[in-house]
Amino acid sequence: MTPPAELPVVLTPRWIAPVEPANTVLTDHAVVIRGDLIEAVLPRDEALRLYPHASRTDLPDHLLIPGLINLHSHAAMALLRGAGDDLPLERWLHERIWPIEAAVMSDAFVYDGAVLACREMLRGGVTTFNDMYFFPEATARAALDMGMRAVLGILVIDFPSAYGSGPADYLDKGMALRDSLRHEASIGFCLAPHAPYSVSDDAFREVAKLAAELQLPVHMHVHETASEITNHIAQYGVRPLERLAALGLVGPELIAVHAVHLNDAEIRLLADHGASVAHCPHSNLKLASGIAPIARMLDQGINLGIGTDGSASNNRLDMLLEMRTASLLAKGASTDATALGAHATLQAATLSAARAIGWQDRLGSIIAGKSADLVAIDLSDDDQQPIYDPVAQLLYCAGREQVTDVWIGGRPVVTKRQLACTRALDAVSGISASRVVWHNRLSLLVPDGV
Amino acid sequence: MTPPAELPVVLTPRWIAPVEPANTVLTDHAVVIRGDLIEAVLPRDEALRLYPHASRTDLPDHLLIPGLINLHSHAAMALLRGAGDDLPLERWLHERIWPIEAAVMSDAFVYDGAVLACREMLRGGVTTFNDMYFFPEATARAALDMGMRAVLGILVIDFPSAYGSGPADYLDKGMALRDSLRHEASIGFCLAPHAPYSVSDDAFREVAKLAAELQLPVHMHVHETASEITNHIAQYGVRPLERLAALGLVGPELIAVHAVHLNDAEIRLLADHGASVAHCPHSNLKLASGIAPIARMLDQGINLGIGTDGSASNNRLDMLLEMRTASLLAKGASTDATALGAHATLQAATLSAARAIGWQDRLGSIIAGKSADLVAIDLSDDDQQPIYDPVAQLLYCAGREQVTDVWIGGRPVVTKRQLACTRALDAVSGISASRVVWHNRLSLLVPDGV
Repeated sequence: MTPPAELPVVLTPRWIAPVEPANTVLTDHAVVIRGDLIEAVLPRDEALRLYPHASRTDLPDHLLIPGLINLHSHAAMALLRGAGDDLPLERWLHERIWPIEAAVMSDAFVYDGAVLACREMLRGGVTTFNDMYFFPEATARAALDMGMRAVLGILVIDFPSAYGSGPADYLDKGMALRDSLRHEASIGFCLAPHAPYSVSDDAFREVAKLAAELQLPVHMHVHETASEITNHIAQYGVRPLERLAALGLVGPELIAVHAVHLNDAEIRLLADHGASVAHCPHSNLKLASGIAPIARMLDQGINLGIGTDGSASNNRLDMLLEMRTASLLAKGASTDATALGAHATLQAATLSAARAIGWQDRLGSIIAGKSADLVAIDLSDDDQQPIYDPVAQLLYCAGREQVTDVWIGGRPVVTKRQLACTRALDAVSGISASRVVWHNRLSLLVPDGV
Repeated sequence: MTPPAELPVVLTPRWIAPVEPANTVLTDHAVVIRGDLIEAVLPRDEALRLYPHASRTDLPDHLLIPGLINLHSHAAMALLRGAGDDLPLERWLHERIWPIEAAVMSDAFVYDGAVLACREMLRGGVTTFNDMYFFPEATARAALDMGMRAVLGILVIDFPSAYGSGPADYLDKGMALRDSLRHEASIGFCLAPHAPYSVSDDAFREVAKLAAELQLPVHMHVHETASEITNHIAQYGVRPLERLAALGLVGPELIAVHAVHLNDAEIRLLADHGASVAHCPHSNLKLASGIAPIARMLDQGINLGIGTDGSASNNRLDMLLEMRTASLLAKGASTDATALGAHATLQAATLSAARAIGWQDRLGSIIAGKSADLVAIDLSDDDQQPIYDPVAQLLYCAGREQVTDVWIGGRPVVTKRQLACTRALDAVSGISASRVVWHNRLSLLVPDGV
């Protein structure tokens, strides 16, 4: 990876959407990067006067935004893309995803899939992803090789896998991984109990204890489908969120993924306790889980982030597309065209997500002192004209194919739409042979593949 | 425009999705084009043996599909993109769209906007669009200059505009335009009464008479919002579709655009009369009109097409994206993950749309005798791997940025992602100065523009 430039770098984009302050578009401004941090955001003329010896990157047709944060991913599932399209959820899980995972799960499978996922996410302007999967050490290696920030889930799930024997083993392995990566500033950790239907009370109590002791976020699937709620009531006598609340797991540390099926009391519960929601609209639609009540959540003040989920249920790790769908779906489902507007959606995918993972002091907006995680989007194509509000244009018109440059901690990781770091390019080319091997193995497990 | 090649051309893509027969993916096959028609679809070896002197275009990483048909557009509104984002429908119409249209409407405005729309649609694999707008003669000129098929609406609306004084004048102008363009094989016509709330009974009776006499489709906004139905009941005592049925306007010629708010009886009415629906999911979501009951429509056998609507309510004339959202939304809204699967969605955007506009014998599938309207999509990027079903990959993973080549009537109109016809390039460059003028004029009409 290229080391951060020692000289300051002055970026002069046409527009800056700093996210802080909210609903703002700066023109004739510059962003000054020194080392891995944003040193200043100031009028362009002033920047050029104050930093006459800086290296300058002109972005004459570009909107500059904070790096996007994918608040819910299973990165390694990039290798399972398309393995179960147009199937009902139960068949998708029982006939495709679980048997395939059981057959191929390994450190190598997770590393290779995560490298491909990082490549896709980086080129689409995603600089940080919040992941939950087996073999998180492999996902960590992939993220480090690709120069990407990752928050890894310390997985907790009741059933055994190639990765571990059960909750205690998963927790031990995850905590050991956290210790071993303490020095990596680009790697963070969440506790990641899989879901109320797959984690016992004892394991949840251990999670709650560790979350409190270590100040770790808790990343968990919550109320994704109607049937899991019905089944939970049959087994526990209460809806999942009521059990989670009783176990002390509904608080500001909770990242409730999906949250499709919430009644008004549950929306208030999450809001009152400062919990976050990771909204995954494509996955919820594709698996026919339903439509999350986003407008009502925002009315109650829930901290909202957006995630792609894994490639087997999306099938595109494209945060800009996920943001557009989140915004459009919130309007259509609430019949309020002002719901989750363009600026609010950008905030959800940056600053609100940073808050959910506990990195709001480092990430999520373009202000002095934060990490220089930045994305430049070229809006010069005829298809992008005319432009009144470039943030609305980004949300409703542009696509990830317009992302030209991405910086993480001041390092260029994407330049002219291509990966810019030698180590990342090496990682991708290093797995090109194994990718074919995985595909051949997976093809045997996917009926009717072409 | 390049004339069609006299020699046959053999295309050898990796996959062909012919749409007829349904749910089929051909590998190791070729498509033979002679003049403007598909001469044959046959095994590749046989094609190379039978056509040894043909010009050959190898598409080694590509899926070949029929040209996409945009079943509802207001192409000229490309110039109004972004002019009213995040506004409720009433403010969007009354404060933005209608005043702006009143200020700028002219033949030149429509031509310039339609050229930009054609450019965007062509590069996204759209070969035919079914349009409704003022000054359809300008849209026709744009389509002819850009080498694109267009079905033009013979507009009928009760209020005057720069284009005409009222229904009789609009009909006269539209019919005269149809006469003057009879010799253009790439141009077709619909009758286009705007909507039940903006067209009187007398005008509708004239439309019904002309539709029967001339065998023309009737392209109309129907039940887009809940409030238009409420208002219609207050004015006419019945819901709009009941009035349309009484006026003889519900039949196989009807293309009901939007159809967001349909009760079960209305779904059966449309199905029983062989009517088509033009589903515009992005527009319906963005304007918060609601979510059309697509799964129930398909259960009843309604002929379903997909449209982008205009750029002021979408804001991207991207049929592949519209198809993905249509498919995902149908699943999410019906809680049935098998609803509007990938192959069914491709059929909706090709063969079913061709049927709606009366061109099912010429367009919509890759079979011998149909026009060579074809789109090649390159699925070789790492982000598109692995591939089991290339049609599912197209729907759920690829984007219009993967479209590399487009042919209309055998003519290459997009090659290597760029417009291929000199006349089209001239048309785009010819309006580049006026585009800036329009933007400057429009900016004065759009508050808070940046």
